Amino acid sequence: MKAFENVRGMRDFLPQELAKRRFIESKVRECFQIYGYEEVETPIIEYFELLSMRAGEEIRHRMYAFKDLGGRKVALRPEMTASFARVVATKLRSEAKPLRLGYIANCFRYDNPQMGRYREFWQAGFELFGSSRLEADAEIIIVNNDLMKRLGFSGFFIKIGDVRILRGLLNSEGVSEDDQNTIMGLVDKRKVKSVLTFLEQKKVSDGCLKTVKKLLELRGTDCRKILEDGKRILSQNERSLEALEDLEAIINLARVGGVDTTFLVDVGFARGLEYYTGMIYEVFIPELGIALGGGGRYDKLVELFGGEPTPAVGCAPGIDRIVLAMEKKGLFSGQLSTINRVLIIPVGDDLSAKALEIAANLRRNGISAQNEVVGRNIGSALSYADKKGYAYAIIVGPRELEKGCIILRNMKVKEQKEVHLVNLVNEMSLMTRISLKSI
Amino acid sequence: MKAFENVRGMRDFLPQELAKRRFIESKVRECFQIYGYEEVETPIIEYFELLSMRAGEEIRHRMYAFKDLGGRKVALRPEMTASFARVVATKLRSEAKPLRLGYIANCFRYDNPQMGRYREFWQAGFELFGSSRLEADAEIIIVNNDLMKRLGFSGFFIKIGDVRILRGLLNSEGVSEDDQNTIMGLVDKRKVKSVLTFLEQKKVSDGCLKTVKKLLELRGTDCRKILEDGKRILSQNERSLEALEDLEAIINLARVGGVDTTFLVDVGFARGLEYYTGMIYEVFIPELGIALGGGGRYDKLVELFGGEPTPAVGCAPGIDRIVLAMEKKGLFSGQLSTINRVLIIPVGDDLSAKALEIAANLRRNGISAQNEVVGRNIGSALSYADKKGYAYAIIVGPRELEKGCIILRNMKVKEQKEVHLVNLVNEMSLMTRISLKSI
Repeated sequence: MKAFENVRGMRDFLPQELAKRRFIESKVRECFQIYGYEEVETPIIEYFELLSMRAGEEIRHRMYAFKDLGGRKVALRPEMTASFARVVATKLRSEAKPLRLGYIANCFRYDNPQMGRYREFWQAGFELFGSSRLEADAEIIIVNNDLMKRLGFSGFFIKIGDVRILRGLLNSEGVSEDDQNTIMGLVDKRKVKSVLTFLEQKKVSDGCLKTVKKLLELRGTDCRKILEDGKRILSQNERSLEALEDLEAIINLARVGGVDTTFLVDVGFARGLEYYTGMIYEVFIPELGIALGGGGRYDKLVELFGGEPTPAVGCAPGIDRIVLAMEKKGLFSGQLSTINRVLIIPVGDDLSAKALEIAANLRRNGISAQNEVVGRNIGSALSYADKKGYAYAIIVGPRELEKGCIILRNMKVKEQKEVHLVNLVNEMSLMTRISLKSI
Repeated sequence: MKAFENVRGMRDFLPQELAKRRFIESKVRECFQIYGYEEVETPIIEYFELLSMRAGEEIRHRMYAFKDLGGRKVALRPEMTASFARVVATKLRSEAKPLRLGYIANCFRYDNPQMGRYREFWQAGFELFGSSRLEADAEIIIVNNDLMKRLGFSGFFIKIGDVRILRGLLNSEGVSEDDQNTIMGLVDKRKVKSVLTFLEQKKVSDGCLKTVKKLLELRGTDCRKILEDGKRILSQNERSLEALEDLEAIINLARVGGVDTTFLVDVGFARGLEYYTGMIYEVFIPELGIALGGGGRYDKLVELFGGEPTPAVGCAPGIDRIVLAMEKKGLFSGQLSTINRVLIIPVGDDLSAKALEIAANLRRNGISAQNEVVGRNIGSALSYADKKGYAYAIIVGPRELEKGCIILRNMKVKEQKEVHLVNLVNEMSLMTRISLKSI
């Protein structure tokens, strides 16, 4: 029956899968602490109007939008930046800036499910509000880069550009903002031909057409050369030139801040979201054709949402894709710790209370102890313990109990011995104690 | 503008608020480990049909239900048990039982917002699948009780009953399941008069009416007495009697398992969800008129969802209400740790690169360091550091830097000294190192 399946694009995270996400989340929170980003959570349901304001055509049409029982037009958030800009514009309006905020959150888009793309997906985020300076752009790249390193990645690269390069050019030709948004959407999807056809229809100059064509091909890891070429091509356009110079400075600041990753400058680079106003970037590994996250500057969004003018820059590492990439590169091995657990098996129903008592005592002493609660025989119980990866079993039998003892069995080496109950905690502590600190 | 507000019943969790929830979550995860519950996550969107199947009239009408862009009738989960029963019926079908699963999850109900009740709310959960024995019922109470203790609660009580008591009686009078569900819904809301009127309309016997009336008033903390009274009243009804005897045994097992909490036996107790088949309970503190969570046995749900017959019992501590209760009892004080952070302030723009370099070095050594990224003067920067609760500031000035030094300022005692850069990490480590283990 259909109802008993996942809705298309939705996923269950069973323990092994979830452990991978939890590992990544722990590294994200390490970065929150080390970089001073305070974690905030916003609701999954927001007004449709808020979410659609600068989301971009593509995302706007793929939102889970509906009317709630009170007739409000709402939607499930397709990304987090709008919600964070809202919070900064309202509740954190009078908070001292800059403000560093972080999140780990699920978002929803009715995309076509494919590798690394789901309809409910997980993102982390770092948002820095209140600085228009290039050190802020650099900081976002530095923290994203550091996160990748802490996760074990090497050999990834950072594709970087600036929306002002193309927009600066289109502005000077009098192309409207709406048309610019359409063009940026096409550029994002690398539809070069469509871009040029669209520009022809809009009757931009031949010079502009030629320049756009050149820009869309201008990219490479020799940053200095690409930026110099860009400056030559755009020598007549002040705003575009400024963007190129900023890019150079951001890359240099990131280097000083510890980023030794390869930068790929992409002069004709765009991202789907319409709120970007400056630098944009994405993180890639060669083994995977999709970005592991990215970010950029969005200086107008807080103001648009009724807040004080507040420049901002942020990034959103994509957790699902990072899981995929880590699997592909074997980065989880040895990272997902398991704990030693003990299964307590009463021999006969009249000893199950005693087994509960023993479990309670072990737990009070920090040992992960579970009771056998189906009343099966020892053989089946031990085979269950084996299947479930228990490190130890405690058999509570009448004969041993008369002497105040139980049988402690090491499931891995399949050896067992009698242990007196007064010594049990000590004995087990040496072997199985889990440090609650490490949870 | 309305769009810039939270949708009614939805909340933002700013850092201080979120820290409270995170603290509770850490204690829940401690219990997952110690009691062997493996964490699982299911999607927020499920088929409406699945979620509504045994949710109960009340919840069914308050779901966020809508059609997705593919025309599927879906809803946001109003609770977690249906999703977990689905997973056990399908993906974990052939997994060795018993199966202990845990979750921390947000759910959605279009309830009227009031104290402790929101339209997006957070629950933890412990679900034990595959045991019909009373030790399993006891275990769920034991772990819930332990969680409350780990959070710092004392003086709470556990209200306990069993849906079989009333249902057994109604069965023997031939009351249909649908009508029973209606009655349980009314009992849940303590609408005694409506219950009796409804029963009269259904033409149950006078004896039954009298018995129901007595049962709905039969509750108290003298468990033995209440249970004996119940047995006397229900002496003719086997199923009800069995439930009362089970209750007695569960309480005794819970006691042996370390629960020293007051039990309040409530013979006429019901909960809103229709899937319960046996013991049900809720946790209360006298200071708050609402339950801090509860649970019960649901032996038929996995089977109903197409799985093997799988008895099950579980509980769902309500995180939002626990936050409220902890605030009311002052249980957060001293629990929410802060870390020592340092703000690095360059004197003049040409030193901001140096400041980034110093920050990178500190972070590599586990120190939480942030850069001043708005280019303001030292006075404003220090006052910002003060406002934001920084423990230290590092001033990177040209004069000191010539000697390879910076100025390290203790923000609390307002003292500063020159420190050589080669000694900085050591000096700071002694004072501010955060243990990443403890994150």
